[in-house]
Amino acid sequence: MIETAWLFETVAKLDDAARLAAETRQLDLIKPRGALGRLEEIAVRLSAMQGNKHPCVDKVYIVVFVGDHGVVAEGISAFPQSVTGEMLKNFVGGGAAISVLAQELNAELEVFNLGLVKNTECSDPVVNCNLGPGTANFCQAPAMCEDQLFAALNVGRRAVENARLNGAHLFIGGEMGIGNTTSAAALACALLNSPTEQLAGPGTGLDRQGVARKCNIINRALDLHRQYLKLPLEALRRLGGFEIAALVGSYMRCAQLGLPVLIDGFISSVAALTVTQLCLNSSNWFLLSHRSAEPGHTVVLDAINAQPLLNLGMCLGEGSGAATTVPLLRLACALHNKMATFSEACVTGQN
Amino acid sequence: MIETAWLFETVAKLDDAARLAAETRQLDLIKPRGALGRLEEIAVRLSAMQGNKHPCVDKVYIVVFVGDHGVVAEGISAFPQSVTGEMLKNFVGGGAAISVLAQELNAELEVFNLGLVKNTECSDPVVNCNLGPGTANFCQAPAMCEDQLFAALNVGRRAVENARLNGAHLFIGGEMGIGNTTSAAALACALLNSPTEQLAGPGTGLDRQGVARKCNIINRALDLHRQYLKLPLEALRRLGGFEIAALVGSYMRCAQLGLPVLIDGFISSVAALTVTQLCLNSSNWFLLSHRSAEPGHTVVLDAINAQPLLNLGMCLGEGSGAATTVPLLRLACALHNKMATFSEACVTGQN
Repeated sequence: MIETAWLFETVAKLDDAARLAAETRQLDLIKPRGALGRLEEIAVRLSAMQGNKHPCVDKVYIVVFVGDHGVVAEGISAFPQSVTGEMLKNFVGGGAAISVLAQELNAELEVFNLGLVKNTECSDPVVNCNLGPGTANFCQAPAMCEDQLFAALNVGRRAVENARLNGAHLFIGGEMGIGNTTSAAALACALLNSPTEQLAGPGTGLDRQGVARKCNIINRALDLHRQYLKLPLEALRRLGGFEIAALVGSYMRCAQLGLPVLIDGFISSVAALTVTQLCLNSSNWFLLSHRSAEPGHTVVLDAINAQPLLNLGMCLGEGSGAATTVPLLRLACALHNKMATFSEACVTGQN
Repeated sequence: MIETAWLFETVAKLDDAARLAAETRQLDLIKPRGALGRLEEIAVRLSAMQGNKHPCVDKVYIVVFVGDHGVVAEGISAFPQSVTGEMLKNFVGGGAAISVLAQELNAELEVFNLGLVKNTECSDPVVNCNLGPGTANFCQAPAMCEDQLFAALNVGRRAVENARLNGAHLFIGGEMGIGNTTSAAALACALLNSPTEQLAGPGTGLDRQGVARKCNIINRALDLHRQYLKLPLEALRRLGGFEIAALVGSYMRCAQLGLPVLIDGFISSVAALTVTQLCLNSSNWFLLSHRSAEPGHTVVLDAINAQPLLNLGMCLGEGSGAATTVPLLRLACALHNKMATFSEACVTGQN
């Protein structure tokens, strides 16, 4: 019996008193008003999320969701599908980008294998979920059956509940799955009713011809599913992937439980977009980390009215852009919490 | 006897072999080519600077140069001049932004009091240099006499030599001095022959009228000194400040000794611009940290052909933007050094 009632829970409220206290403190820190730029905004937003005028992101919980995509059969990726399973082993081995970043940040890292074409049982930190041998090819059928969709959402949900139990201050959801920029672009097209050309990009390295082919494939899928795409969850079931659904479940649960989320790049932002269409005010809990090199990311960011902190041309996924942004959040908190105030320091204020 | 011979030393060479080895390694890391964006470029540049395909920025040496400006008499700052000395005490007390950042980064912090209007003797980590009671008002006379200029340059030089002796991997020079955006803007106008309106901005919080006044003051100074502004060092002496000259000396010495520098915001970038006009290829050793909220910064960055890593609307000075960027450099090194390679990990490469 798959649980679904939680999907209808409301989003947690921000703490306005804590926000106000944090804003007041920022004005009292010994610096010209606004001189720390967006670091001030981050500290204040985290205060409102954490209900504490002294915010903290020491404990970071990173989860990577991994799944295979049936649409890869259409030849839309620069890498062979076997790479998904190979990368899973690298998460275990510690040589993947997100493994290195998690270690540097002293963050928890958990990896969920939702379902691959080739059965790849892995050991810690990989959790095997066995939702199926990848999704179906969404050019021919819905990517997921209902059971798979809800199972994937629940994997995300439980990851967040686990993060919460472990005292996490900040949640990062990453993804890995050959073909998933195609799936994410198709889903974003459906959710935003935007032209495919705006959302389909080179992904991990397609050339111009490859991108054109990807657009065609997405257009075929949109035509096939057209009459079922009005409801975001149904669009997710038909065009998404296991790992994208798990991201949706995790971001939704973060918003419900009031755990700040740092959103990664293109695919993660499409998952966040899905959540904003499912849960009112969920974006209150989203911090956007970086602007990906994937051109469609800007369209999605505009749709959720978000300005990421970094713009470094990254497009790796795995949560790597979000992880790279963590030190900025930590420094924002340190400055907010530890700088002297005008009153303490006897520094003369602005004329 | 003030030493000046070192000013004519040539700039250290980058290590092309190390750069090539680092580029080769980046191509072998288990990720799509270029997927780490500018983090790849940073790792490769640091490799070339450090002559090591495994770059490292663990040991960061931060120096803040502090000085008062005679031009403050013209009413060009939103804060009273006494704040320079008050901030000096905060560097000692640990409550200033750069003090908090240095502690978080586990970086060395050294502060040089080059000369204030009101004698302010401070204890560790402040070093008192006693160059004079601030600079002269450059609307009436050269800001510095020659002895002061060369003494300030030497303070910067010795700070870098000390950093080198202490095994620093990366140098950051910061500044503090009420009125120093006016001085930096005037100097940049002279060096670039650009209109004042492009380089004079709100600084720490001037309104529109204040900025117009600042432009007028700078124009008066440029008129007064016009015939002496062709040589960068003479422009620096006439329009700069003690702390700006110390930054120039430090950046120049970094380039000569081959120590990577992370440049901070507007004022630091004007110092870097001065060095690029004094020493051929010195910008090889400059990494640009952030784009300041000060509008003129973009003009200066364009002039030295630099793209900073961050754009967070910061404009505090003290080296704070550079310090905030340090974790990105560290993560770039960690990813470069610790990620698995395709050959090690048996991951299939790009189609």
